Amino acid sequence: MPLAELWRGGLPESAHLGHLVIADAGGIREHWGNPGAIIFPRSSCKMIQALPLLESGAAAAAGLQPRHLALACASHEGAALHVGAVSRWLQDLGLGEADLRCGAHEPRDKAERNRLIRAAEPPCQLHNNCSGKHAGFLTVNRHLGAGPDYGEYDHPLQQAIRQTTAEVAGEELAGWGVDGCSAPNFAFSLQGLARAMARFAVAREGQAGARGDAMARLVQAMIAHPDLVAGEGRACTGLMRAAEGRAAIKVGAEGVFVAILPEQGLGIALKCVDGNARAAEVALSAVLVRLGVIAAGHPLAQKWQDPVQRSWRGIEAGVLRADPALHRPLNQGAGKA
Amino acid sequence: MPLAELWRGGLPESAHLGHLVIADAGGIREHWGNPGAIIFPRSSCKMIQALPLLESGAAAAAGLQPRHLALACASHEGAALHVGAVSRWLQDLGLGEADLRCGAHEPRDKAERNRLIRAAEPPCQLHNNCSGKHAGFLTVNRHLGAGPDYGEYDHPLQQAIRQTTAEVAGEELAGWGVDGCSAPNFAFSLQGLARAMARFAVAREGQAGARGDAMARLVQAMIAHPDLVAGEGRACTGLMRAAEGRAAIKVGAEGVFVAILPEQGLGIALKCVDGNARAAEVALSAVLVRLGVIAAGHPLAQKWQDPVQRSWRGIEAGVLRADPALHRPLNQGAGKA
Repeated sequence: MPLAELWRGGLPESAHLGHLVIADAGGIREHWGNPGAIIFPRSSCKMIQALPLLESGAAAAAGLQPRHLALACASHEGAALHVGAVSRWLQDLGLGEADLRCGAHEPRDKAERNRLIRAAEPPCQLHNNCSGKHAGFLTVNRHLGAGPDYGEYDHPLQQAIRQTTAEVAGEELAGWGVDGCSAPNFAFSLQGLARAMARFAVAREGQAGARGDAMARLVQAMIAHPDLVAGEGRACTGLMRAAEGRAAIKVGAEGVFVAILPEQGLGIALKCVDGNARAAEVALSAVLVRLGVIAAGHPLAQKWQDPVQRSWRGIEAGVLRADPALHRPLNQGAGKA
Repeated sequence: MPLAELWRGGLPESAHLGHLVIADAGGIREHWGNPGAIIFPRSSCKMIQALPLLESGAAAAAGLQPRHLALACASHEGAALHVGAVSRWLQDLGLGEADLRCGAHEPRDKAERNRLIRAAEPPCQLHNNCSGKHAGFLTVNRHLGAGPDYGEYDHPLQQAIRQTTAEVAGEELAGWGVDGCSAPNFAFSLQGLARAMARFAVAREGQAGARGDAMARLVQAMIAHPDLVAGEGRACTGLMRAAEGRAAIKVGAEGVFVAILPEQGLGIALKCVDGNARAAEVALSAVLVRLGVIAAGHPLAQKWQDPVQRSWRGIEAGVLRADPALHRPLNQGAGKA
């Protein structure tokens, strides 16, 4: 089903298809496209991958604070803010950059990127957008006393994540693949991902055991630190700020987005079929506005609300428009799972 | 129709739809998807936009060489090679960077990008990937003695390009929009674009008047200077080198690609519906291999032949695969236009 279209000169130029599910604790509330589509959640499931960090007691033993938990769920920009925080976290564990297994890439943050170029310094693993997740992995791993290659599929940590993922998705996993950061990423249905996000949304501390506590603390940490979850100019950070505490929002590679709405007890998951983030962003924005999570035209969220496309001289050239259907309630109930 | 799929861990992760037409001088020879789809060719039509440069006599009057014509058709990387050549071209015209109307953006070439960052020098309009096209525009414009805002829709140059585009596409134009470089870009059908490329493919100097001469010289210039048409690491340059003189190849923004095959008298045009370049590249590569233009596994073209996807640590994670149907002849004749 269409998620978004790019228009230029009054004509449609490009179009993005996708699937979207809004779930509550009971199952699917609304859907668009195929709720049973098997997807790789990629980084959108970092909150699930962080559950063993809390449930194992590792986070408490290491004295982790909300900022650490936000970083464990982050796909950050590699700004000085993020790199410094992950570096200190590793130091507190008695570990260092070389213990990471995420690989290095140039940071998206321009100030840090330019600093590296001016200093003729190559990017390191701390700059990897997943370095916070991997710092979380290392924290559990030290607690478990397991081997250093914590990213291998057979490693006890990844097996714990596999088990946890199947539990919160409420279904059999369809398989797994290697993510950009070299850790396993488990494939399951989009409705399973939305259902998992709904479980995060209804979790409250002290009400549903260790898992409920862990879920609630991760959501609170993300909402408290939108700047750590992504960075300046990024959709996760901007939309969370515009939501003013009403949503935790997380992107995944290849056009995945999820949102956790604690006030409404809803989880949202969407996948742009062609893997494009721009369509996923505007589609999610449209749904968040419709659900009253973000005010239409909120200055912090305008960048993702049917954004105008401009030429390099700033001339208005077109618009990237969420499918009009996303502004109204979608197919309801039919796909109840 | 599918153009390409991204696979991870043995499962399909993302998929790209699109349209593709192979035309000869008589019309459509093969098609895939909808040959009548209205598209914006974006930068894939720079060869068409350069026809008035030659047909007006402006290129001869300015003493332009094949390297200038290749740059007029280029979406270059903004490497020192490109920036220097465009700068000298403007100087020879008695003009400068400030006469350009393309706007500035950071060059894709990393060496030049890093040089600018180290020198704390902002990118200028010469770095714009379209600066060669705009130098061509300025060359015609000086010849015509028209006003400085050569990129405006109503300017005589853009009206000449509009007329030329309709002629070589062989159809009414569907409209126009503002391109990334602020110049008008005319919308017409994909089959019109393929037909136009077939006209370039069969053009030989001295056989079909000023237009045939102009077409032949532009194709020869592109084939002679693949490095100027895009840059190191880019599909246009790599695929043209691998084609060893058998093809002129040009990308357009939003998932457009064209190829001109002079030996076979064929023009190819394709549009990835979601605007993604990666799918357009692998789909075009598959067709070029099937047509014998590029050798399967050619070392200069491997990057675009079902490329393996790797994690940031270099671990094999998946593959971006052209649709298997593209390796065989497609629907033939049915869409003859």
